[in-house]
Amino acid sequence: MTLTARALDGVPEIAADTDLALLLAERAGAPLHDGDVVVVAHKAVSKAEGRVRRLGEVEPSPRAVELAAAHDKDPRHVQVVLDETAELLRAARGVLICVTHHGFVCANAGVDASNAADSDTLILLPLDPDASARALRARLRELTGAAPAVVITDSFGRAWRHGQTDVAIGVAGLAPLVDWRGRTDSVGRELRATWIALADEVAGAADLARDKDSRQPLVIVSGLDRHVLPADDDGPGAAALLRGASEDLFR
Amino acid sequence: MTLTARALDGVPEIAADTDLALLLAERAGAPLHDGDVVVVAHKAVSKAEGRVRRLGEVEPSPRAVELAAAHDKDPRHVQVVLDETAELLRAARGVLICVTHHGFVCANAGVDASNAADSDTLILLPLDPDASARALRARLRELTGAAPAVVITDSFGRAWRHGQTDVAIGVAGLAPLVDWRGRTDSVGRELRATWIALADEVAGAADLARDKDSRQPLVIVSGLDRHVLPADDDGPGAAALLRGASEDLFR
Repeated sequence: MTLTARALDGVPEIAADTDLALLLAERAGAPLHDGDVVVVAHKAVSKAEGRVRRLGEVEPSPRAVELAAAHDKDPRHVQVVLDETAELLRAARGVLICVTHHGFVCANAGVDASNAADSDTLILLPLDPDASARALRARLRELTGAAPAVVITDSFGRAWRHGQTDVAIGVAGLAPLVDWRGRTDSVGRELRATWIALADEVAGAADLARDKDSRQPLVIVSGLDRHVLPADDDGPGAAALLRGASEDLFR
Repeated sequence: MTLTARALDGVPEIAADTDLALLLAERAGAPLHDGDVVVVAHKAVSKAEGRVRRLGEVEPSPRAVELAAAHDKDPRHVQVVLDETAELLRAARGVLICVTHHGFVCANAGVDASNAADSDTLILLPLDPDASARALRARLRELTGAAPAVVITDSFGRAWRHGQTDVAIGVAGLAPLVDWRGRTDSVGRELRATWIALADEVAGAADLARDKDSRQPLVIVSGLDRHVLPADDDGPGAAALLRGASEDLFR
């Protein structure tokens, strides 16, 4: 089996009214297929959905002022992070590790200043990234007749390991997890004893196809047909990837 | 840019005297290139290096007996895990989360019974996976004249998210991390504000190319030429991916 991941060139700046599915269909260079997976960096989705905040319009709370002073940050930026945060897990060495309202555990609740249109603008995570993925898949189908899967990604740090990898924050039409635990092959040998976070591996593979900068938010991954769901089944989404606090050993 | 990952078919059972580089060169189907990345599931490396233990030869310590009773495990298996463990971080719900002697944080110190030759055999992580990767790269160069990068992988669980993803435990000839923090493009816009764990994304991408079972330990990833180091430079290896305990917020 061969997997391919191809980043689309020439994607223009995304605005609040950009039709991402139309942009994808126009820039894909080749027809999209049902078995393809379209991978979209969340910033493109967030900008298209207007999920941005302007620092000039933020009034920091006393808690934001206090945290900002302790961690050498802009109190308005911290306030935006707190607004996106359900629980602050750690605040240390200038890093705020948050549980977002969606349940993602990540730095700064996914709030990011880079690649914003200007330095006064912060980009948030989509309000409901699984819904965003489903809407994008439906719109792609409407425009092209094909129903590729959609994965929306962000770059998250990890416990224990340096660096960030892209992970799935929204999924439609792809099995987010593949469970091989306990299965045996035709002659009774155990198959891979793993429960594979497929959508996260797809997010990382797509990131590898990108050039050095972020003006390549759109990547098409092919070769995963066996994991792409039928057009009328979006699957459980990236929500299925979240380990709840009660079953998590590291909070 | 297009990334491709191709799993090699027809790889025979790996024995303690298997020349993995020769096997790779023979099964590659096409000549290897300097810019390729050869991704090898660690079990193939561990078997070739004889990094296995037989349960029948293990004498469990009182601590292993106690942990095994508390977590419904075979005390001999637990003893092997403890032998591979520098620090036991958590023991809960039948899972032992360990820091290995290498510094990896993972379940059961990477000790695995699946895909062993028989049910009495446990497969350990390589003693020094970066050295294994370097040796494999050197031998590939000797055999083929090409010096592709080598990444040795295992499937690790994560904090906060369900499922496992393949990560790099040994690397030679590939930049394990790519640092774009603070860099700006030609017109002064900030590039991707990330420190990318490239080798981990490569490990995950390779896993996606595998079929449903684990008899495809060898995957060739192409399209990453810009990250592959010259033949005489193996780089810092997967050791560079390890976050030390003193800088880790989640232990």
